[in-house]
Amino acid sequence: MLEALKEKVLKANLDLVKHHLVLFTWGNVSEIDRETQLVVIKPSGVSYDEMKASDMVVVDLNGNVVEGDLRPSSDTPTHIEFYKAFPGIGGVTHTHSTFATAWAQAGRDIPFYGTTHADYFYGDIPCARSLTQAEIEGEYEKNTGLVIIERFRKDNIDPLAVPGVLIKSHGVFAFGKDGDGSVYNATVIEEVAKMAYLTEGINPDVQRADMFMMEKHYMRKHGKNAYYGQKK
Amino acid sequence: MLEALKEKVLKANLDLVKHHLVLFTWGNVSEIDRETQLVVIKPSGVSYDEMKASDMVVVDLNGNVVEGDLRPSSDTPTHIEFYKAFPGIGGVTHTHSTFATAWAQAGRDIPFYGTTHADYFYGDIPCARSLTQAEIEGEYEKNTGLVIIERFRKDNIDPLAVPGVLIKSHGVFAFGKDGDGSVYNATVIEEVAKMAYLTEGINPDVQRADMFMMEKHYMRKHGKNAYYGQKK
Amino acid sequence: MLEALKEKVLKANLDLVKHHLVLFTWGNVSEIDRETQLVVIKPSGVSYDEMKASDMVVVDLNGNVVEGDLRPSSDTPTHIEFYKAFPGIGGVTHTHSTFATAWAQAGRDIPFYGTTHADYFYGDIPCARSLTQAEIEGEYEKNTGLVIIERFRKDNIDPLAVPGVLIKSHGVFAFGKDGDGSVYNATVIEEVAKMAYLTEGINPDVQRADMFMMEKHYMRKHGKNAYYGQKK
Amino acid sequence: MLEALKEKVLKANLDLVKHHLVLFTWGNVSEIDRETQLVVIKPSGVSYDEMKASDMVVVDLNGNVVEGDLRPSSDTPTHIEFYKAFPGIGGVTHTHSTFATAWAQAGRDIPFYGTTHADYFYGDIPCARSLTQAEIEGEYEKNTGLVIIERFRKDNIDPLAVPGVLIKSHGVFAFGKDGDGSVYNATVIEEVAKMAYLTEGINPDVQRADMFMMEKHYMRKHGKNAYYGQKK
Repeated sequence: MLEALKEKVLKANLDLVKHHLVLFTWGNVSEIDRETQLVVIKPSGVSYDEMKASDMVVVDLNGNVVEGDLRPSSDTPTHIEFYKAFPGIGGVTHTHSTFATAWAQAGRDIPFYGTTHADYFYGDIPCARSLTQAEIEGEYEKNTGLVIIERFRKDNIDPLAVPGVLIKSHGVFAFGKDGDGSVYNATVIEEVAKMAYLTEGINPDVQRADMFMMEKHYMRKHGKNAYYGQKK
Repeated sequence: MLEALKEKVLKANLDLVKHHLVLFTWGNVSEIDRETQLVVIKPSGVSYDEMKASDMVVVDLNGNVVEGDLRPSSDTPTHIEFYKAFPGIGGVTHTHSTFATAWAQAGRDIPFYGTTHADYFYGDIPCARSLTQAEIEGEYEKNTGLVIIERFRKDNIDPLAVPGVLIKSHGVFAFGKDGDGSVYNATVIEEVAKMAYLTEGINPDVQRADMFMMEKHYMRKHGKNAYYGQKK
Repeated sequence: MLEALKEKVLKANLDLVKHHLVLFTWGNVSEIDRETQLVVIKPSGVSYDEMKASDMVVVDLNGNVVEGDLRPSSDTPTHIEFYKAFPGIGGVTHTHSTFATAWAQAGRDIPFYGTTHADYFYGDIPCARSLTQAEIEGEYEKNTGLVIIERFRKDNIDPLAVPGVLIKSHGVFAFGKDGDGSVYNATVIEEVAKMAYLTEGINPDVQRADMFMMEKHYMRKHGKNAYYGQKK
Repeated sequence: MLEALKEKVLKANLDLVKHHLVLFTWGNVSEIDRETQLVVIKPSGVSYDEMKASDMVVVDLNGNVVEGDLRPSSDTPTHIEFYKAFPGIGGVTHTHSTFATAWAQAGRDIPFYGTTHADYFYGDIPCARSLTQAEIEGEYEKNTGLVIIERFRKDNIDPLAVPGVLIKSHGVFAFGKDGDGSVYNATVIEEVAKMAYLTEGINPDVQRADMFMMEKHYMRKHGKNAYYGQKK
């Protein structure tokens, strides 16, 4: 079932290692097949060195395992909430990448300081609030998704235009059109997080860059008249 | 004698290099065989490039070399104190890993700032006090162990729940159920130390994360109802 | 056409990866053939893993593609302005390398703090001003070049003596006698940017180094009586 | 002539690359043969990728090339002053390693903050003063050596007990019993420089560690009753 997708999701998970976004088993990637509404996700706590495509777990949008011998990632309920709330996305990545997690622990949105940011994120990268005690002691992973979705709704953020988010005292979730795309965006978030940290160290009074620069850079890559890259 | 354990301890020592926790010979891992009460430990000052399983040294809990042609790590008396004081542990790692050692030199406990920390450490990572002149000029390595144990006793810390500690102006000791487990925890300490450093740089007014989040994250990995990873 | 130059430009682009100056496709190198006034440049948004010499694009100084099936780098108009304004240069590199980009985002010139800097840059590494809204909404990439050239003219900077520049909220451009030389200088800028950042962290009151030291170091490598390296 | 020593000096120079202490050609190692009073040193500005043992240059203590087709390192006169002033040393390394150079640019001695430092350096790592204009415009490289020696004499520092030094606005020189030993110490300086930088970031009020700890740690490795490592 969904064998091609399992291969693709395996490769996306291994790319987390290649891009230095995970230590041990601290990350996971999933991708949804929108036709069947089934999600393929990494198994929980399995070493990247040993993971095979057949270890990938298939779950439905109620969180039931449809195929697979292993438990799915413990973060599966978070992924599911994103797929339900954001119909445009096809892939989700979760990491504890170092610099982005430091911003999450610091509880701050990553401000837009330059074109590296604007090439991929049309706005600051938000940091969602802490979960309450009730939210943590209840359906914790599901509530993690809901608290992030609450922030996107409140600020009217499009998860394809700002394809990533921090959550306070925790880490990063990134979105994409597929699993690969979400890994790509998770990689960008880590680099942008590092640059923003250094930027404030070099100039503590730095201000956000100009919005018309964001407009230009985001649109030359993603707008309908985009001219970056090759014609598709 | 204990040939399988020597292989295991060799591999654990080599993993220090793989995880970038040591420069030159600056680290060591041991594991105890609780049945015979014998400890297998890295030899002192031998290059990781040349080390063989047969170089591992077997010592008893009085510090006597029971087997081996080489001197054991100069830190052996510290390891022995831990094995005597903490019956639950089976492995000990010592490193001078960069960020964790910086916290040790700074003389500060590493505060709990997020889930990466809480997934492995149920509380701040303590920094034990400096040794007095008498403690240093006496049985220095043994006293290093005793000063660390003093801190665990004073604050009623369980070395399996907080499996690592800094010692002022020196470096890191990590504990585990075996040698591998202690290397794993030493790796986590370094990453958590780096994240905590960056977190304070991004938000100098950052506060510890919520205790109910620590409770949740630690318990979902380590509690009796743990649901992270695969069923054993 | 210009096959040897295409090979050379390909290799220079791949060196960006080797020197850790680019993530994904975020950089480009070009070189001009001054005889034919044709520029060979990397195609836009093509992965470094797959790039071949035959993918390199040949453009003239009006920005017209003279040969090549792919679109040239979207930064081509910036490169062209440099070749038109600075007859002494033969190569241009653009990167978003981490530390240098942080200085660009901070909007500061990189001050001359030591001989590593002076060995290659005869003066601070300038950070050109932000583009205005009109400049961004107009011919953006061309204007990026013009704003940088404006800074070199205003401060009477020789782009071979200070072969690199930051542009506010964006990244780095480096110059050289050929493509390779510009990659070399881009690598130096990143290292100098990192050192300058750390220097200010270690001593917030640090002052520029002495101008007579800059004179000495720059001239022993680049002056007419240079004695660094081998006789040519 | 001195073929075995040339091989050894080549390997020591290549170890600079292995330990990430040099970018491009920015470093050099020499070793003296005390019997013949001849020094073997890296040639100037030659790429580490292409260097062969036969490229090593033999010079006498007057700086005359005794054998070799290439120019010796431009820093040769500095190395020679050290060999003349410090009869106990047999090797010298010069680098612009990142963190140590940042301390040099900041113009500060690296304070003794912990045992990693004390295991190799019996005291702060000094930062020698800037050269005057006359010293720079005169015999610059020779004067670099003399200014460093002045600092060791003034503070009565033994270059084998504190086998390394920074020079203001420039970089690092490290000493050893041979070339290898000086590379080892240069590697330690870089790590200690990084740790000290981080330590001050974590605790801006940090004080030097206790002198009796330095005494203990330095002596257990280097004193006449040293017990670290294997018996020789």
